[in-house]
Amino acid sequence: MGETNIGIERLQELITRGPFNRWLNFTVLKSDADGVEIRAAWREEWVVNPDRRYTHGGILAAIIDVAADYAVAAQLGRPVPTIDVRVDYHKAAMPGDLTAKARVVRMGSQYSTAEAYLYDKDGALVASGRGTYFTASPKA
Amino acid sequence: MGETNIGIERLQELITRGPFNRWLNFTVLKSDADGVEIRAAWREEWVVNPDRRYTHGGILAAIIDVAADYAVAAQLGRPVPTIDVRVDYHKAAMPGDLTAKARVVRMGSQYSTAEAYLYDKDGALVASGRGTYFTASPKA
Amino acid sequence: MGETNIGIERLQELITRGPFNRWLNFTVLKSDADGVEIRAAWREEWVVNPDRRYTHGGILAAIIDVAADYAVAAQLGRPVPTIDVRVDYHKAAMPGDLTAKARVVRMGSQYSTAEAYLYDKDGALVASGRGTYFTASPKA
Amino acid sequence: MGETNIGIERLQELITRGPFNRWLNFTVLKSDADGVEIRAAWREEWVVNPDRRYTHGGILAAIIDVAADYAVAAQLGRPVPTIDVRVDYHKAAMPGDLTAKARVVRMGSQYSTAEAYLYDKDGALVASGRGTYFTASPKA
Repeated sequence: MGETNIGIERLQELITRGPFNRWLNFTVLKSDADGVEIRAAWREEWVVNPDRRYTHGGILAAIIDVAADYAVAAQLGRPVPTIDVRVDYHKAAMPGDLTAKARVVRMGSQYSTAEAYLYDKDGALVASGRGTYFTASPKA
Repeated sequence: MGETNIGIERLQELITRGPFNRWLNFTVLKSDADGVEIRAAWREEWVVNPDRRYTHGGILAAIIDVAADYAVAAQLGRPVPTIDVRVDYHKAAMPGDLTAKARVVRMGSQYSTAEAYLYDKDGALVASGRGTYFTASPKA
Repeated sequence: MGETNIGIERLQELITRGPFNRWLNFTVLKSDADGVEIRAAWREEWVVNPDRRYTHGGILAAIIDVAADYAVAAQLGRPVPTIDVRVDYHKAAMPGDLTAKARVVRMGSQYSTAEAYLYDKDGALVASGRGTYFTASPKA
Repeated sequence: MGETNIGIERLQELITRGPFNRWLNFTVLKSDADGVEIRAAWREEWVVNPDRRYTHGGILAAIIDVAADYAVAAQLGRPVPTIDVRVDYHKAAMPGDLTAKARVVRMGSQYSTAEAYLYDKDGALVASGRGTYFTASPKA
């Protein structure tokens, strides 16, 4: 477990297939035995508060879920359905690219747990979370 | 508590101020002592899987967080920061508008809990969740 | 789904088999299509703070998990493994019996979601939460 | 933040004040800038399934919450109220002492996040989780 890894190029391909993932502008930066690192490139539509200009929590939640999911996918070779996810918000995320670091907490044959930490362009932690992913073999 | 309510028009104004909320195409359908009901109008960018065409979990999470937040906002008269949120996925959400029903579980002077249930265009439950919101008075 | 129900006596038997459930002093009060209601009888060991005498959050979490689990069990006829659980604390729970009301949010063939609300002896909501339960058929 | 730490003896005193903490048989093993490590000594009452003899999830949840809370307490000098907690179950915990490692994810002036990982006597990860803690200054 954790020993196989599909590599950056293949992971980037898998992520980029999804229209909403493309809209989130993901670039896979790293994928190895320790987990994955992905960057989401800022879009003006992400703002929640037009005066203070910080990023909508739904965007942060989506990035955390995707990062944790792809930490699992990097080992399994395919993205997996999210069963549930929890996200904690630590700090307003101001305009700028966001980078998530994610790792598998436990890989199971039926469901698995992964966690992710999300950083702003200055490296400050803005949110973190964990999810349960459905990792049973797809039916033949 | 739970007795005051800012009304549909004012709630719609508050939601519509945020660029990402506008991108999610929210319409407030109801806001009364039992909670709020909001609809998000489908966009093609929401798709996660181009073959099966279902909606990205990050979109469902964002709608649930917004609905629960505005259930609190409807009582307080202002949107509130999300402290943390949990989302459970129940069923693939196929293309079509999504409607969330949300209510306050407990209103507190420092932090509050609200929950939301999300339905597809046929009325099937696709996701649900709950969040903790920061409801301390803004500093003068 | 949700139509069969094993009944109060059988549910009480299932709960009472577990030593920790016995230690939590559970009595099944109700079990029908709307969900289950169970009472946990107060013990002095539950106190977390010897001065203020309120109940340890771990006790409230355990009761919420058991109630949600048995809402699922009442339909399936057997208790199920908890995959993950979230608990929100609303109010200090003072010495006295605690009553949980739980219901299935979504029953699935692989995993299911249930939620529970916990009340003190005066009927005040002290905690609530939800969990994901593993409901795949046991292997033959 | 994270630089002060009350030390093992003082942390042990704070934990041991609570009757339910005493019942959970906690020993503080470590408390430094990286977090805390606490051990809970096995009790027969913890069993959930009399045939298979594994530990009740409510016990694992309580230990995780206590460990995460005391990671915060080690920095603040006082235990703090849990706002909410999430626990993921990874593996049946068989009879034997359990050891939790916990650390603060983000310390805030109003609320803070901490996470914990729980290991059985053979060092296998049996559960993990995270909670939000209320860290506003107590009113004078």
